[in-house]
Amino acid sequence: MSRIAPEQLEHFIQQLFLGADVSPEVASVVSRVLVEGDLLGHHTHGVKLAQGYLRDLRSGHAKGQAASLQVVRQSPAAVLYDADYLLGPYCVEQALDFTAQAARTFGIGVATIRRSHHIACLAAYLQRYTEQDLIPLVLTSDPAVASVAPHGGLDPVYTPNPLGIGIPTGEKPILIDVSMSTITNGLVNKTHQAGGQLEHAALIDQDGQPTRDTTTFFATPPGAILPLGSLEFGHKGFALGTLVEALTAGLGGFGRKDGVKQWGAAVTVLTFDPAFFGGVEELKAEMDHFVAACLESRPRVAQSPVRMPGHAGIARRAKAFEQGLELPEDVLAALRTAASEAGSDWPF
Amino acid sequence: MSRIAPEQLEHFIQQLFLGADVSPEVASVVSRVLVEGDLLGHHTHGVKLAQGYLRDLRSGHAKGQAASLQVVRQSPAAVLYDADYLLGPYCVEQALDFTAQAARTFGIGVATIRRSHHIACLAAYLQRYTEQDLIPLVLTSDPAVASVAPHGGLDPVYTPNPLGIGIPTGEKPILIDVSMSTITNGLVNKTHQAGGQLEHAALIDQDGQPTRDTTTFFATPPGAILPLGSLEFGHKGFALGTLVEALTAGLGGFGRKDGVKQWGAAVTVLTFDPAFFGGVEELKAEMDHFVAACLESRPRVAQSPVRMPGHAGIARRAKAFEQGLELPEDVLAALRTAASEAGSDWPF
Repeated sequence: MSRIAPEQLEHFIQQLFLGADVSPEVASVVSRVLVEGDLLGHHTHGVKLAQGYLRDLRSGHAKGQAASLQVVRQSPAAVLYDADYLLGPYCVEQALDFTAQAARTFGIGVATIRRSHHIACLAAYLQRYTEQDLIPLVLTSDPAVASVAPHGGLDPVYTPNPLGIGIPTGEKPILIDVSMSTITNGLVNKTHQAGGQLEHAALIDQDGQPTRDTTTFFATPPGAILPLGSLEFGHKGFALGTLVEALTAGLGGFGRKDGVKQWGAAVTVLTFDPAFFGGVEELKAEMDHFVAACLESRPRVAQSPVRMPGHAGIARRAKAFEQGLELPEDVLAALRTAASEAGSDWPF
Repeated sequence: MSRIAPEQLEHFIQQLFLGADVSPEVASVVSRVLVEGDLLGHHTHGVKLAQGYLRDLRSGHAKGQAASLQVVRQSPAAVLYDADYLLGPYCVEQALDFTAQAARTFGIGVATIRRSHHIACLAAYLQRYTEQDLIPLVLTSDPAVASVAPHGGLDPVYTPNPLGIGIPTGEKPILIDVSMSTITNGLVNKTHQAGGQLEHAALIDQDGQPTRDTTTFFATPPGAILPLGSLEFGHKGFALGTLVEALTAGLGGFGRKDGVKQWGAAVTVLTFDPAFFGGVEELKAEMDHFVAACLESRPRVAQSPVRMPGHAGIARRAKAFEQGLELPEDVLAALRTAASEAGSDWPF
């Protein structure tokens, strides 16, 4: 197969979720967010995830009904949800919609979601809000998984704990989606299946040595992902991972202490309305100035000029709408399996 | 000289600021915050800064009157201040007090300060709020300084852009204070004065090579500090530095685009009240579980077990109250000069 029209892919994914008894509004958001992940180039966190989501729906480890998302407590600027493992993209978008509205009234809104199912690609949520001249921020951890070692330690304790933030500018928005570890679980898994040598020594083995070899991660006892900053400056990545842990599982009051075993996410989202603060035009002018200064910084390697976070993804996205979306083999294989397991025809 | 009682040091610093026509409430907060920085072990960001603050007060580049802090816009959960270069610690504490009160009502509060003077050590602000079972978060950048290169670039564009966050636990709070770059401007300056070799290759020279040699930083054209993540993962540190830039200078609408030349800070602070979300006891239990798991992670180097951010500082602080505070020679020299420039006696 060659390239797939994004709309067709989204329709196909949506049908798979509808076939698994997922509410139409949930299936709609989840399929849109998954495809958006691939459009931006995050193929480990795009439609490849549908297979696992559908398996969890069948086993009851994920919920598909919108009513599973319950408000526990609410103020005009903040809300705590319990999601009972409803598919994460729907929960996150509901939470961001709440905070966007709160931000327009108060300048800021915040929402914490406990017991969400997995929330896919953080960058995929952002443009919906930057297009409204807002700044959305998403933080997440997974209390069921331990893959990153604290700085100075060998045993994995927590997750890559990523954050995503969208920043409006006068031109393309800045879309940030980074983990507080050197690399993500998804990259370790993908690399392991593809031969096992990472580009950089992002893992620590049981002898305390940094390594590119992913087999250490699957050994007994397991190796671990290093915090961002690696051995030299890993105290900073560890501190940032702790920040995300506290603002997600800590703030929600549900996490590792509860012995969670199923795939899921603790999530906190915030939205800032720059119109309340220094003004939308001032924000954009300030960020345009910053972007220009960054792009003017002479490149370290002549053929690799400085790139702003998200701009490569936005270009990829535009190209996919023109020429169709090209999916890597591992993603196609996962989709074919998902279709087969759902008893659906493979349409591409 | 040997050790100084913290209270005596604070009184001395306070008198220097009062002598420079600083409002009593401002002098009180600034001297307390500066000493607190040293108590926690952040000697580059403690009382050593008094000399520069006093010089800026004399030249009119810093203001000392509390009335300089003006509310530009306010909602029940958010505020934008303009500080007209009032000494930063007073501005930050006023902002945090506002957000703490908002958080108790709404779950969250946020404040942005534009045109603050320098705000010293971020960790020094936090315990006042963790002791109230709140989570304070401080972000800052300095629009007048460019010392960090964007990932892939050679020319410095922005500042280390640190953040600080305090997290209550059942025992000692977690106090995080980290820059989004490998190291801070303060460390580069201090190392340069002390011989010029950094512990790690945290700078990039004009040939694009990472280096420990600080002379590159003061060359023409200058080298730069690498983003957190260094060459391999510096796109993440650059993204996080961009986040802080957007939420401080961007949100406040005043920054690099305005051609700022004087020492100062763009600041945003947030406070979360866990009582509104999953509950204070649940947050503490979750973080206690996390801390225990981190401390149980077998150490990479047997004699260096995992440490939680801020715990070494808290131990240092307790020791200083018992035995007196020991200040490094460069700090004492700066203090003596400050006293001499102010025409004050040296009391220690």
